[in-house]
Amino acid sequence: MPQLRQNIILKDWVVISTERAKRPEQLKEDKNISSVNTPEYDEKCPFCPGNEAKTGNDHEFHRIGDHEKWSLRVIPNKFPALIPPEESEIKRNTQDFFRWMDGVGHHEVLIESEKHNLTLATMDLERVKDVIRAYQLRIDHLMQQPYVESVIAFRNHGLKAGASLLHPHSQIIALPVIPRDIMSRMNEAIRYHEEHRECMFCDVLKMEMEGGKRIILESKHFVAFTPYAASTPFHLWIYPKRHSSSIISITDEEMSDFAETLRTVLRKLYFGLNDPDYNFIIRNSPKGYGNTVFFHWYLTIVPRLTRTAGFELGSGMFINPSIPEENAEYLRSVKE
Amino acid sequence: MPQLRQNIILKDWVVISTERAKRPEQLKEDKNISSVNTPEYDEKCPFCPGNEAKTGNDHEFHRIGDHEKWSLRVIPNKFPALIPPEESEIKRNTQDFFRWMDGVGHHEVLIESEKHNLTLATMDLERVKDVIRAYQLRIDHLMQQPYVESVIAFRNHGLKAGASLLHPHSQIIALPVIPRDIMSRMNEAIRYHEEHRECMFCDVLKMEMEGGKRIILESKHFVAFTPYAASTPFHLWIYPKRHSSSIISITDEEMSDFAETLRTVLRKLYFGLNDPDYNFIIRNSPKGYGNTVFFHWYLTIVPRLTRTAGFELGSGMFINPSIPEENAEYLRSVKE
Repeated sequence: MPQLRQNIILKDWVVISTERAKRPEQLKEDKNISSVNTPEYDEKCPFCPGNEAKTGNDHEFHRIGDHEKWSLRVIPNKFPALIPPEESEIKRNTQDFFRWMDGVGHHEVLIESEKHNLTLATMDLERVKDVIRAYQLRIDHLMQQPYVESVIAFRNHGLKAGASLLHPHSQIIALPVIPRDIMSRMNEAIRYHEEHRECMFCDVLKMEMEGGKRIILESKHFVAFTPYAASTPFHLWIYPKRHSSSIISITDEEMSDFAETLRTVLRKLYFGLNDPDYNFIIRNSPKGYGNTVFFHWYLTIVPRLTRTAGFELGSGMFINPSIPEENAEYLRSVKE
Repeated sequence: MPQLRQNIILKDWVVISTERAKRPEQLKEDKNISSVNTPEYDEKCPFCPGNEAKTGNDHEFHRIGDHEKWSLRVIPNKFPALIPPEESEIKRNTQDFFRWMDGVGHHEVLIESEKHNLTLATMDLERVKDVIRAYQLRIDHLMQQPYVESVIAFRNHGLKAGASLLHPHSQIIALPVIPRDIMSRMNEAIRYHEEHRECMFCDVLKMEMEGGKRIILESKHFVAFTPYAASTPFHLWIYPKRHSSSIISITDEEMSDFAETLRTVLRKLYFGLNDPDYNFIIRNSPKGYGNTVFFHWYLTIVPRLTRTAGFELGSGMFINPSIPEENAEYLRSVKE
């Protein structure tokens, strides 16, 4: 019998499709091209050292190392979805039927390594920590811009996840609005807190740790698990144990621990599913909420092993052809 | 300057990305495989005549023609996402932390033609009308089941749109819940009606017809246009002019007109963009709303010319690398 499970965060229903269920092994990628058989330098890659001129100036951005010999850079996207305002006044129409505003904001690329063929799963731990610190610094900086309302930091890994370049990189987009999905997540969190006087996410974590069957790993400060109503096979969450509504607040010790947890989880996907394409996103508090009692930051990883089709577009619901508990069990067993 | 546009229906913001904008010609598919160079019969295709046994019994379903010589069939999906209940009691947990219910419902496949290599764009008009009548009859029938709360009728065309079989077909999924996206659409429509005492969709149609620059075609009973805040290149809507909250209510004359409008729009995509992969969805009222003053049914077509990545997953927003007015102008000019 198929099961409908409700995602407590957004109150979305997900179909856990037992009739279509696939074993974890059946979901493994059948890949020929991957970073493994790629050289560590590609002269044509705009993100490789020596090609800095192709990507525009990064002098005002965060960089580790000097201009000649860097190990991490943050640069403006060459084809930005949003651009910083030239004047202090931002044009917007709030009166007429069709509402619009200037597309102001930032669209940055975080080049995670000078080496073309690395990815977070295969990088040294210290380098993964550098990447996380760069997220923290850039999110903090961008949130301070007066026209920025929310910041989305995310990673597209592989073609199916929307990445057009192999060279390891993340993206950070600063928006002049709070997207509806983010508002819905905040509103549900407020409602939950009103009813229970607890943080919804702290309660999720407590229930998951008590149950244990969806836990992938637990470290001192973080827990990685498959959501009860996972929307896709191997959909994963990494939650901090300490309540905080923003990654900006994490300590140096927590950052080391987060880097190790994230790297281990990505290595389990890399070795267990043959380097699957994935997206990950840092779910952070938008502007104006401060360090709230009701919202709790976390990271969500969505492997792109299935396709969205008319049903998902028509309903906003997902059909997951795998069982979250089986996915967790499989990943627990993968040696990295 | 990029622009943010707000979709009035869900209040979602879309980035109209002028810095990334592509001309309509650049978005054309570069396809080798399509129905054009495929034979009209494939003995291995489970949907081709002679293979009826492979798909399970369709005797209780809608069919045009007899069992040997049919031109349209509606059959249960072989790998159904949801299945009809065996007992009248449906198990559900509304008390504990994690909420679930039995995955009851229906998952049907509408085989649109006996011919393997046709699609709605290349079928005769009368056959397209048969398909629409089948949507109407099946939605009506499924909505009458006591455990069904909403019905999603949709079409996946091509691999990128999630279709695994070439043979022309649609799918109909009957759900025991009303998905959050559908509830949000209803709630926004109610709010708009409260404020303006008008149907939001009727007002959208009025504004679009007055403006004209996003109109693709207008028939006696229907209007096809690109939404002001189109989420993807060549995202299209077909609205009925007569206010009604469900496709179940359309008259025979309207059905002929809808078939012709839909076929013409799909032919414009087929010839203008080289048979792009697409999804379409009928947005209908869920159960319990009757024929409301505030909701208006319509059809949405989403060509799959771009990929969703971390930003879309993280924000629920879309970045559209094309201009809706230019898309409409291009499609108006395409001869079918």
